[in-house]
Order: sequence, then structure tokens, then C-alpha cells
Amino acid sequence: MSETTTPEPLREDLPPETIEPEEEQETVLDERGSLTSDFVRMIRERIDEGDAEEVRRIVAELKPADIADLIEQLDEEDARKFVAIEGTELPFEVLPELEDGSRDIVVDALSTEQLAEAVSELDTDEAAFVLEDLDEKERAEVLAEMPIADRLALKAALDYDEDTAGRIMQRDVFAAPGYWNVGQILDRLRSVERLPDRFYDVYVVDPSYRIIGSVPLSKFIKAKRDTVIQDLCTPDPIVIDANMDQEEVAYLFEKYNLISAPVVDESKRLVGMITVDDIVEVVREEADEDMLALAGIAEDNSINAPVIKVARSRFVWLLVNLGTAILASFVIGLFDATIEQMVALAILMPIVASMGGNAGTQSMTVAVRNLSTRTLTTATALRAVYKETAVSIINGVAFAILMGAATAVWYGLLAGQPRSEAVALGGVLAASMIINMLCAGLAGILIPLGLSRIGQDPAVSSAVFVTTVTDVVGFFVFLGLAAVFLVG
Amino acid sequence: MSETTTPEPLREDLPPETIEPEEEQETVLDERGSLTSDFVRMIRERIDEGDAEEVRRIVAELKPADIADLIEQLDEEDARKFVAIEGTELPFEVLPELEDGSRDIVVDALSTEQLAEAVSELDTDEAAFVLEDLDEKERAEVLAEMPIADRLALKAALDYDEDTAGRIMQRDVFAAPGYWNVGQILDRLRSVERLPDRFYDVYVVDPSYRIIGSVPLSKFIKAKRDTVIQDLCTPDPIVIDANMDQEEVAYLFEKYNLISAPVVDESKRLVGMITVDDIVEVVREEADEDMLALAGIAEDNSINAPVIKVARSRFVWLLVNLGTAILASFVIGLFDATIEQMVALAILMPIVASMGGNAGTQSMTVAVRNLSTRTLTTATALRAVYKETAVSIINGVAFAILMGAATAVWYGLLAGQPRSEAVALGGVLAASMIINMLCAGLAGILIPLGLSRIGQDPAVSSAVFVTTVTDVVGFFVFLGLAAVFLVG
Repeated sequence: MSETTTPEPLREDLPPETIEPEEEQETVLDERGSLTSDFVRMIRERIDEGDAEEVRRIVAELKPADIADLIEQLDEEDARKFVAIEGTELPFEVLPELEDGSRDIVVDALSTEQLAEAVSELDTDEAAFVLEDLDEKERAEVLAEMPIADRLALKAALDYDEDTAGRIMQRDVFAAPGYWNVGQILDRLRSVERLPDRFYDVYVVDPSYRIIGSVPLSKFIKAKRDTVIQDLCTPDPIVIDANMDQEEVAYLFEKYNLISAPVVDESKRLVGMITVDDIVEVVREEADEDMLALAGIAEDNSINAPVIKVARSRFVWLLVNLGTAILASFVIGLFDATIEQMVALAILMPIVASMGGNAGTQSMTVAVRNLSTRTLTTATALRAVYKETAVSIINGVAFAILMGAATAVWYGLLAGQPRSEAVALGGVLAASMIINMLCAGLAGILIPLGLSRIGQDPAVSSAVFVTTVTDVVGFFVFLGLAAVFLVG
Repeated sequence: MSETTTPEPLREDLPPETIEPEEEQETVLDERGSLTSDFVRMIRERIDEGDAEEVRRIVAELKPADIADLIEQLDEEDARKFVAIEGTELPFEVLPELEDGSRDIVVDALSTEQLAEAVSELDTDEAAFVLEDLDEKERAEVLAEMPIADRLALKAALDYDEDTAGRIMQRDVFAAPGYWNVGQILDRLRSVERLPDRFYDVYVVDPSYRIIGSVPLSKFIKAKRDTVIQDLCTPDPIVIDANMDQEEVAYLFEKYNLISAPVVDESKRLVGMITVDDIVEVVREEADEDMLALAGIAEDNSINAPVIKVARSRFVWLLVNLGTAILASFVIGLFDATIEQMVALAILMPIVASMGGNAGTQSMTVAVRNLSTRTLTTATALRAVYKETAVSIINGVAFAILMGAATAVWYGLLAGQPRSEAVALGGVLAASMIINMLCAGLAGILIPLGLSRIGQDPAVSSAVFVTTVTDVVGFFVFLGLAAVFLVG
């Protein structure tokens, strides 16, 4: 096999001037750093042809993150074949890089022994991440195959709730007593075995392993050997509680521009560290969750999730919205006699509801976003409500004038109705637009605020309440005013 | 003033057992790490009372990020007063931590000299970030006040386009020639003046300052003094082009779990570095932008942005949506005679449009998200379209059965219409729901894909196209089928 892993034999047939040693490298990734579709297609063809050696040769050149990308781009069948082809050559670092749907495929294709071996090689946070999605039985089997030290560390990590600091922390951590000097620490660092792959701060602890301070490596490295570490410490470092929610952890990292932070248990003893590369993922995930939640998508909707699972996860939200739509229909039904007398109402009513819906969505999205970045707080809530009210009135009046006038002209001139009736219809439309857009703005800010106040995630359920308000108010006010002023 | 900055005098009146040295600390921040509203209220009261010394004393204990938070929580008037009270005591690190609206307030309240001094103290990336929002004239004035070296560095940074790697990079960077050994580098590090505050890798360069590799500090620190640095290098490091868009940079950081990366100019020479703490902000910003763009909000809508600016930024989107709503009205208007004969159609038609709209929003949000995380690519597009089609048909059929049956029962039994007519109405509703939800799913995936293919940001304009499709198709199919099968 050694001769096939080196590309030279292939090149012998080519004239020397056409040899471009970087060519293959260049066509793997596009200028944005993504795998090119040509490359993915080429691999897929090799897989389908069963050319295992060629696949292994090409993939050996890729970084784990690119292999993960490749697997995500393959369909389920090809992904399974690919894992079978790679076998033990698949780098274990690929596992934590995969999205849930694709990771399930890879994990299914690996034997328990292979999985145990891969998981042992990973940092505790990544290993926990891979294991947490397995079912109880499978997880126990994998754990049983692992070396005792890794198993215990991993069990301890899995004891923390999902989405807590304890889950995303790395348990191997380097700490030094405050009275040591730089030279002692350097010597210790060079001799100690179990160190994290990468770390960015030296944590300084007291005899009971409580954090006194931390020293960035870039500062540590510049210090003289005889400097006592305690004198270098940044005082009052940010310390993370192991039970803290990962969203809170991300907030602290963002707020204080942290690169790594020590994690402590209930008795304030150092138990691990969190590094910012995990936080980037948390920030992305949480933002994605908010965005998807606003559209009513609660679960995994990745490209490799099964159709039936995706359909079911969306069904629930659509069902809730059907309730809203039926409620709106019911409101319209109250005015069926009015509509019967004046069909123009049926034609215009969706405009009132739709403009309210859009204005409400704008306010709500800003509110949800400001709640999650914590610029919308108890201290600023009143100001935000005032501002949304002002914005809603300004835009409400603007669109009321626009559509009121347009309707009067259209109904009077083009549809040839009596002028007074046309003006009255324009007036009713204008008034109901102002009222509905004001209600939309208020609902858009008050509903997320209220949900957040009672401890609910505003991203998850605000949209349906806001739409209910704008639909019901929109139809009721427009048809109601029409019933009073135009018909009967 | 020195006696007011130390809290001891206040404590003398208290009996010793009630002294809780950490109490003040605890009430400033809540358990989630945010400023408590009590604390903000207290500061606001001190500001309104004009108790400048007390404000300065309390604020002196806060970290810059917390001071920034505090300013964001104050209203405009209080924020101005606060900056006046703090004067030169306001730490310059606060500036880059502020949101746009609040930073404008602070920048306005500072003199040109104060601003120039503050900006000189910041890292180049942060200084550029603060200066980029000033108008031309103001920026020139501030630059003129700065020391020449800082001015040149900053001008060079500002020459790169906004949102590029050149803007977010830090220009002070440490690099060593490949033939140096660890000892030489350590000695150099201890003597060199202009080093970045924090750094995480030693960059290794050839004589023309091109990147050969990089060595993480945590690896560097463990090496013996006589190790040649080139032997420690990670081969093939990720190198960022200074003109690369920050979103691309963030993608590379996320994909390869980077902590810092060297930035090079057109001739591949090292010109700076980007660190992951800036990337966390980019990820947050870009995710927020997507989320807000989907709701039609393109500009700054932070709590401190002026009402009129917010109203204007939202007006445009509402106007575009008004176009959609009018188009939908026009479609309904085509069937006014049909509605006149059967008002039930006006009552039921919003259900068809609304279910389509929600299903479309779900597909679209997933598509926009998968495009931005690059799991939706040319290679996976076909699979994604197939999946959305399948999901739409499943849910379309489910809701068609549900609502078709419910309508037939309601119209036949409760509203007392002839049974055959009720069944026909249920059938028309069911058929149009299936058709509209299928169109919604397809529009939800094809429109973002198409926009992205022609180089447009799918987050910005997908929503309006998707809504247009679901409204127009929904009303047209439902009323059209009704016109053919139920009326006339």
C-alpha cells in the first residue's frame, strides 16, 4: 500500500512542465475555505466505484475538520460506505466536528471498540459531547471498553447537566501554588505528563485548590525565572461555576473577552477549564437556536436529519399556528354579514393583518435579540417600550396615510363607487392600520419581555402570541369599524 | 480625593460582625454576571443628585466591560452626565465595549484630545473600530492629535475595507525567524517593547517575513532552550488574507478551532494577527444580522438608537411587504364575485395563506441558517430540496386532512349547509392547503438558494419573496378551486 499513498507513480506519464505540485491542494478547498463541489463529487465517484485505496490516499491529506465537512456533504449511504472504507484510519478528531445527524451515521458505523478507542483519545469535553447523544446501553458499553482513568473522568463530566460549564470544560488543567516561582513552574510544565493539548493561562491556586488568580502565558513567558507567580497574577479573575449554563458562560467570555477561564465546583475548588474555541460554538449554537425558535423549529433540522423527524418537529409549531389562524377565521366569521354587503372588505382585510404581522415581527425580533444580548433589561425595559410605541405610531401613521388615500382613490375612481363611501372606506382602513401597527409594536416588545420575566425563553413562543394579536386585532378592528361606519 | 476612593471610612460606624467585605461586589452583578437593576438605579440616582465623587468612587471598582454595560443601561441624558462626571477617569477600554448608539453618546461627550488619547491607548483593531463610525472631519481631527506611529498604524488599518480581516487584526505581532532557538526567542520576548497585550502563538517566518509555521505558546513553553523553533512548527498553518471578509475569517476560526491566526498582505508577508476574542464578536454579529435581516431590519436597532432612525430603517421593509400584501389583495379581488356568493371563502382563505406562510418561513429559516454555516452547498442542494419537498408533502397532507374534515363538519353540521356542498368546501380547502404548503416548502429552499447563487445575502430578501409566493398561491388556488368547483 505504501506505493499508492505517494502520488509520484501517476506523474511519470506527464511531461515535466505540466507538473503542478500544489494543484490538488488548491482544488480541494475554494477561496472561502470550503470543500469544492468538484472535490466532493470526485470522492463520491471513487466511493461508488469502490476505489477504497484512492479514497484513503486523498483523505489522508485532509485536516479533521475538512473530513467532517466531507462526511456532512455525502448522503447517508455514501457516508456509511466512506466510514467503512476509512475504518481505523478515520482520525478520531473528526467525531466532535460533525453535526448531530452525520455523527449518528459515523457512530453507527463504528464498532464499540473503535468508538471507545476514539473517545479515549479526545479531550473530556469533546468525548462527553460525542457520548451524550448515544442511548444509555450503547454509552455504557463504550465506557466499559475504556481505560479506567478516562472512564472515571468521562463519567464525572457526564454527571453535569447538558449545556452546563461542567460539560464543556476540559478536565486536564495546569495549576501552580502561589508561592512557586516561574522557574519551578517551567520545570514542572516540561516534566508533567497529563497536560491539556493547548492552554493559555497558568492558574494559581491556594493549598485547598481554590483559585487565587491567573497569569496569561504571554505574560508568564516574559517573566524572569525567580519571579514568584503570585506577583504576576491578574487579581479577581473570572471564575466559572461548573453548574453554570453554557449560555451564561458564553456571556462572561464575550463580556470580558476571555480566552480561557477556570471552572470550580460547589466548594470553589478548581476542577477544569473552559477555552474560548468551545465558546465560539456555544455562541453560534445559541444564536442559531434563537433564529430557528422564532420560526418555530425546536429540533435538529440539519441536512442529514431524517425526513420524518424534521416533519414531526415542524408539525407541532404549524399546529399551534393553525390555532391562531382558526381564531382569526372565527373573528372574520363574526362579520360575515358585513362582508356579504361589501366584498371590498374581504379584499382589503389581509393588508391590515399582514402589515401588523410584519411590524410585530420586527419589534419582536429586536426584543428577542436585545434580551439575549442583555441590553434589554429591567433598567431599560421602559425606554424600549416607549421607543417601540413611538416607532409604531410613526410607521402606523405613514402607512395609514399611504393606504387610506390609495384605497379611497381606487375604490372611488377605479371601482366607480360613490365618493363619500370611498373616503369612508379609506378612513376605516387607515384607522385600523394605525391601531393594529401600534398593537403590533406593543405586542412585539411586551410579549418577549413578559415571557422572559416568567422564566420562559422568549425566542420559542413569542411569534405565535404576536401573530395572534396582530391577526385578531387587525381583522376585528377593520371589520368592526366597517360594520359600524360603512355597512348597516 | 484619595480618602473617598477607599471604602474604609464608611465601615467604621458599623459593628465589626456586620462587615461583609464582599457585599458591595455581590450586589453589583447578579448571579448571571449582569449588572443588577438595583445597582443601575442607585447610580442613576447619584447622577441625578450630582454626587460626582460617589459615582467616581463606585465606578473605580468596576471592570471596563461593566462600565460599558452601565452606560448602555442609562438613558441618553444620564449617559452624557455620567461621561462628564467621569471625565479623564473613564477607562479608555470602555470605548470598544460599547454598542454603536451608546458609543456615539460617549464619543460626542469627549473632547478631540481626550478621544485621541484614548484611541492611542487601544490596540489597532479596537482603535479602528472606534474611529470607523466617526464622520470624515472628526476622524481627521482625532488622527491629527495622535502620535505619528499610532497615526500611521491606524491609517493603514482604516485603509482596509470595513468587515475585512485587515480591520479586525491587531498590527503588533511577534514573529521569529525559523533558525532561532527557543532560548533566543525567550530572551527577545523579554526585551522587546512593542508586543501585543496578549498573544497565543509564536509565528515563524522566513527572511522575507512570509509565514513558515506557528507554535502555540503552550507547546513553546515546554520546549528546551536549545530547540530550533522551526522543528516545533505546526506545518501548513491557516493564514488569513488581510482582504478576506470577516465572516470568512470567522468560518475558518470555527472550522479549525483557532485561537489566533497570522494575517498576510497581497505579497504573503505577515502584517498582523487576529485573535479569537474578536471572532466571538463577529460570530455573534453575523448571526444577529441574519436574524434581524430575516425580520427586515437592516440597521442599528439597539436600545440607544434614535427613534426616527429606527422607524426609517423599518419603514423600507414594511413598504416592500405592503407591495406583497397589495398583490395578495389583487388576487383576492379577481374572485370578488365568487366571495360574494359564498362568504365562507373569505373566512377560510386566511388559514390557507397563513399555514403556507408559516411552513415557508420554517423551510426558509433552516435554509438561510444552513447556507451561512455552509452545510447547504452545491453538493447537498439537491438533497435539501428533496427533503423539503418530502417534509412539505407530509405536513401538507396532515393539515389538509385535519382542516378539510373540520371544515366539512363545521359547514355541514354547525352551519347547516347541504352535506355535498360542505364536503366539497372541505375538499377544496384540503387540496389548496397541500398545494400551498408544497409551494411554501419549495419557495423556502429555492429562493434562498437562488439568491445565494446570484451573490445576494439570502437572509436579507428571502422572506418577502417567500411570503409573496405563499400569499399569492394560497389565495389564488383556494379561491380559484372554489370558483370552479363550488360556485358558478
